[in-house]
Amino acid sequence: MKKMKAGLCQFKVVDDKQTNLLKAGAFIERAAKAGAKLVVLPEMFNCPYVSELFPAYAEPLPGGPTAAMLSRLARLHKITLVGGSIPERDRGRVYNTAAVFDPAGHLVARHRKMHLFDVRLKGVTMKESATLSAGNTVTVFRTPFGNMGLLVCYDARFPELFRLLQRHGVTAVVIPAAFSVTTGSAHWHALLRMRAVDNQVYVLAASPARNPRAAYKAYGHSLAADPFGVITAEAGTGETVVTAVLDPGRLKDVRARLPLLAHRRTDLYRVTNLT
Amino acid sequence: MKKMKAGLCQFKVVDDKQTNLLKAGAFIERAAKAGAKLVVLPEMFNCPYVSELFPAYAEPLPGGPTAAMLSRLARLHKITLVGGSIPERDRGRVYNTAAVFDPAGHLVARHRKMHLFDVRLKGVTMKESATLSAGNTVTVFRTPFGNMGLLVCYDARFPELFRLLQRHGVTAVVIPAAFSVTTGSAHWHALLRMRAVDNQVYVLAASPARNPRAAYKAYGHSLAADPFGVITAEAGTGETVVTAVLDPGRLKDVRARLPLLAHRRTDLYRVTNLT
Repeated sequence: MKKMKAGLCQFKVVDDKQTNLLKAGAFIERAAKAGAKLVVLPEMFNCPYVSELFPAYAEPLPGGPTAAMLSRLARLHKITLVGGSIPERDRGRVYNTAAVFDPAGHLVARHRKMHLFDVRLKGVTMKESATLSAGNTVTVFRTPFGNMGLLVCYDARFPELFRLLQRHGVTAVVIPAAFSVTTGSAHWHALLRMRAVDNQVYVLAASPARNPRAAYKAYGHSLAADPFGVITAEAGTGETVVTAVLDPGRLKDVRARLPLLAHRRTDLYRVTNLT
Repeated sequence: MKKMKAGLCQFKVVDDKQTNLLKAGAFIERAAKAGAKLVVLPEMFNCPYVSELFPAYAEPLPGGPTAAMLSRLARLHKITLVGGSIPERDRGRVYNTAAVFDPAGHLVARHRKMHLFDVRLKGVTMKESATLSAGNTVTVFRTPFGNMGLLVCYDARFPELFRLLQRHGVTAVVIPAAFSVTTGSAHWHALLRMRAVDNQVYVLAASPARNPRAAYKAYGHSLAADPFGVITAEAGTGETVVTAVLDPGRLKDVRARLPLLAHRRTDLYRVTNLT
């Protein structure tokens, strides 16, 4: 396991796919130039986060223009690229899908959001299930820092998923996300920090920048949390790239001193994957 | 399910059992006079939190003087009393055990800490397993507000336990605890708030007050978190009683608007109790 620098790209998403792709390309380049070998884009980075718009923006993955661009940029910059998520079309269904490309530009993992965001809170009402289908598979990909888990946004709400990922010995969990201002201000920091602590991993979460003109106001605050829950990089609400170092020494030290994974009572309970 | 007021007793624990019992009695009375119908004491409230001292302070539960006092006070004040935890002696072993007495003074639940706190962090080194044995059973008790789960301190670190409790439809989880200043300042608020949010329950955690003369410095900050993660009552580091209302309307509202329990993919994963 080797040290690795991660870059989180936080940019505004608008209602024009081509503009979003150009913006993503520019931010990926900024992250690569800052030394990031793992670059993460936000959830639904090529499409406004509005249920009704997902079908019109959807494209095959692989096979569509967004995947082609991500593959090319991963190869060009020699990075592992977590291509946020996009609306993916497959056999008449649409998914909220995150894809990972390796430094050779190969698609190495694809995660379809497993938990659809259907809520009606003050300040945010959303019904992803109106247009999206849910994925059914836990997703892990390999990096020089070790195995990493991949979730999309609301998936992070479910502690079981992190335990299923940890069965693959993950060292980090990457989460393209688009929390709302309401849920973000209430839960974003505590949720991501505690998932890192409970599961003794780095958590890397990338959000869109807040766009005052968008219907859905993203919380922003893309962040990296280390295995003790310390926030080692954090954006504000505007456009930026933040970087954080994933450090095997820190991981090992926290796991030795506060051995939460080792202290699980695996004789008494187990999280089972039913698929 | 009915509204219920909870009182969290935060007081200093010293190296004299009789002094601790008198102190506990006075704080239980304060909480009852403040209208609390559920009163919670801290972890190891009759004994300093020092592994080597647990055997000397240990007593049967039921059958010892601490249980007798708690039973009497529960009946006197007509309260449900979560008697923090004490070192319990049973057949040659010592446990870190929390007991619950109903308003008639009957012992209705007993939880032996299932995860022993063996850590070596900067600022806190502890090895409970040097003198304690671990319990093996999840514990639930009934109240007018619904079923409540009972954990002791480090048990709260393990998300699986909350899911096992939730199989009993718990509306609250009560946690006598004695986090250190190190782990408390790093994790206490985020951990307790997120357990409440993830599991859509109230979390009630009672800590000893900080005692500058004690070997082990408790974090304090006894608190109640509602099912959206809002802290509705919080102590500082000194001696106090804080109260919080457990509100069925709030519980129902949060569960309807952000339906995390309903959104679990029970077709894909399950937390299994192996005992």
